Amino acid sequence: MRAVDLIRKKRDSGEHSREEIEFLISGYTRGEIPDYQLSAWLMAAWIRGLNRSELASLTEAMLYSGEVVNLSDLPGKKVDKHSTGGVGDKTSLILAPIVAAGGLNVPMISGRGLGHTGGTLDKLESIPGFNTALTLKEFRRVLGECGMALIGQTAEIAPADKKIYALRDATSTVENIGLICASIMSKKLAEGIDALVLDVKTGSGAFMRNEDDAVKLAEVMVDTAKRMGKKAVALITDMDQPLGKFAGHSNEVIESIEVLKGRGPKDLRDLSLDLSAWMFFLGERTPSVEEGRRLAETMVASGQALEKFRVGVGLQGGDESVIDDYSILPSARSRVDIGSSASGFLAATNCMEFGIALAMLGGGREKKEDKVDHGVGLEFHKRIGDRVEKDEPLVTIHYNATAKLDEAKSRIAEAFVFSEVKVPEKQLVRRMVGV
Amino acid sequence: MRAVDLIRKKRDSGEHSREEIEFLISGYTRGEIPDYQLSAWLMAAWIRGLNRSELASLTEAMLYSGEVVNLSDLPGKKVDKHSTGGVGDKTSLILAPIVAAGGLNVPMISGRGLGHTGGTLDKLESIPGFNTALTLKEFRRVLGECGMALIGQTAEIAPADKKIYALRDATSTVENIGLICASIMSKKLAEGIDALVLDVKTGSGAFMRNEDDAVKLAEVMVDTAKRMGKKAVALITDMDQPLGKFAGHSNEVIESIEVLKGRGPKDLRDLSLDLSAWMFFLGERTPSVEEGRRLAETMVASGQALEKFRVGVGLQGGDESVIDDYSILPSARSRVDIGSSASGFLAATNCMEFGIALAMLGGGREKKEDKVDHGVGLEFHKRIGDRVEKDEPLVTIHYNATAKLDEAKSRIAEAFVFSEVKVPEKQLVRRMVGV
Repeated sequence: MRAVDLIRKKRDSGEHSREEIEFLISGYTRGEIPDYQLSAWLMAAWIRGLNRSELASLTEAMLYSGEVVNLSDLPGKKVDKHSTGGVGDKTSLILAPIVAAGGLNVPMISGRGLGHTGGTLDKLESIPGFNTALTLKEFRRVLGECGMALIGQTAEIAPADKKIYALRDATSTVENIGLICASIMSKKLAEGIDALVLDVKTGSGAFMRNEDDAVKLAEVMVDTAKRMGKKAVALITDMDQPLGKFAGHSNEVIESIEVLKGRGPKDLRDLSLDLSAWMFFLGERTPSVEEGRRLAETMVASGQALEKFRVGVGLQGGDESVIDDYSILPSARSRVDIGSSASGFLAATNCMEFGIALAMLGGGREKKEDKVDHGVGLEFHKRIGDRVEKDEPLVTIHYNATAKLDEAKSRIAEAFVFSEVKVPEKQLVRRMVGV
Repeated sequence: MRAVDLIRKKRDSGEHSREEIEFLISGYTRGEIPDYQLSAWLMAAWIRGLNRSELASLTEAMLYSGEVVNLSDLPGKKVDKHSTGGVGDKTSLILAPIVAAGGLNVPMISGRGLGHTGGTLDKLESIPGFNTALTLKEFRRVLGECGMALIGQTAEIAPADKKIYALRDATSTVENIGLICASIMSKKLAEGIDALVLDVKTGSGAFMRNEDDAVKLAEVMVDTAKRMGKKAVALITDMDQPLGKFAGHSNEVIESIEVLKGRGPKDLRDLSLDLSAWMFFLGERTPSVEEGRRLAETMVASGQALEKFRVGVGLQGGDESVIDDYSILPSARSRVDIGSSASGFLAATNCMEFGIALAMLGGGREKKEDKVDHGVGLEFHKRIGDRVEKDEPLVTIHYNATAKLDEAKSRIAEAFVFSEVKVPEKQLVRRMVGV
């Protein structure tokens, strides 16, 4: 087999066999196929597409380019959730302890924030001492002890993905549903899970702005998971406005703990409980999603989820006192309100702008190497459908650095759209895929 | 400007500006844009295509990546011919002395044979002492002294093409009319010519098997030449059977000298005179193509073309006595006839097979590094339309090495197609483009 022939095949819209894709990916990972050949193939695949069978082969080849965690010695089902990312999306911090408290294992390998989206690892690192860089051995131990563990990508997991992602980034072959799917699924399936709940965001703050694209991505991800013998569903959820009231690391940790305490904003609570419900159902903990939802509610109401969070934080080196004392978290020195430029009903937001503004203030990354300021954040006072009077605060900015404050302020102010008449509230879960 | 954005643009079927293409090509040639980015762009360009304006920009950028010979101090027009290659295609050796004898300059930078096609340089190097590796300075001197000079590609000419061609070869982005056009034209226009006659081969022994593809390539090449201020026409000529009676280096030199002596096979003589006629016309030596044809015939009949060949060979270090004594050329030790497997009329040949068989016998290259055996050759006894009796010789093989003789023999034997009824003779010049 020769790479040049496989490039030609995809260029001419041919369909690859499992062996051909394995040859390309393992050859590239080992350095036997050079960058310039894989980038030509990636462009051909971007334009010509990969069918479901090719995608499963690609995911499998990337998955087995590295270590696949074997958790079969651990009693109980292993279930995870993956979100495609958005603004204020902090459900992992809430559902992991809920689902672990309910008796399943949640082995969660997460990413860092990039661009306008936040990352679970960055949020957890707001908690003094919290270590997201566990080895796979430590990961397994923490998981065994408390049923949840939240760590970052390790070098052993899907090395092909890391190498290919860097090449895609440099060759404009990122935004392709098939390649995105293989990248996500190869990492998630390396966690040794039995089932996966996908939260595919759509709207002005999501990578998939268009709901049809989100559904397409959800479909290929669910199909790929099923082809590889895993249970999977996808919830297509709204990202036309931030999730919850806060974006920014410390602020999101506080809001998550609030939900675990039975408080917090309704949209965040509802979505966290819905995702937990599906995890319970797919993990065969409950015979229906409805019973999963009731179990999730019980775990919160009884304080068991909060207690699980406390134990989990402690096992990963974090200061458990955060639960009772939010002041140990980094906070911003200054605050400023953004007032509404008009009276009317909030009709829409350009939600991605909030994420970009937050990153400009130091609360996100523009480049991978950037440091994150955990204390800065945005507090949202209004939701789509709310009545707003002129000059009424829409957002409170919690900031430290002032270099880009003015630009951030105007980005935020311009991200709101008003209407004379009340628009209906946004439905949070728009569609289900794979049910 | 960033390469990644230009890759995205072409991926999304955008049209590049002249500056964008110049940025890509000069950046790549200087090593500032890595292979993996250019290969992704090449694949996007292969699939999405390049329009006429982009092609002219690409050709220009590749042309100016290196030295462009300035022959403006040399009196008289400079005219060249380029053929897309075939089996037995030796017209350069004939038309260069004809056109130089007729008063124009023919600055010819040629290639070597690769795959099933022969190369002008390899053929000339059959002549003892003939040096095709002149420097540009020597090239200019020989051209000034006798009006013709035939050399190989130098490192100064279009270095971008050399680098890009190697990348295309490794990434399956070779067979694309636009990229082929830019590669050919960037080298030809570097010769400092005023006009170019293109001989675009079509048929079973050509790169463009299909006549429509040949016409498309001819159209973009003529258009590109004209956009760059050069006169150009293309003859679409038949390559469904070998040109002339011989393929193989020494044999083709002999056949070329025979034509210059007023003998040789009719098809080769006719095409050489037709191409010369167009060169005279485009070079403004004659007011019509018909008068160009008469001038070409006169140059042969008067012996002036043969005399020009003698002087040219001598100026490039070759042994001029070859004209009167073919025995100084390398020849093969052995001969064997391939007899016809059937009686009937010769209806078609799979002409590429002859070129491949010749290469297998050492008379061509499979890889660029291969050495060529100048003595081996194929002698064709029948043309399409001829009556053939069973066992009558179709081809005489002149060979030295026997390792692949059997395979070559069966390839040749299987390359003939017979019919019960006489098929019409092939028309040599099928169409004209750019007139």
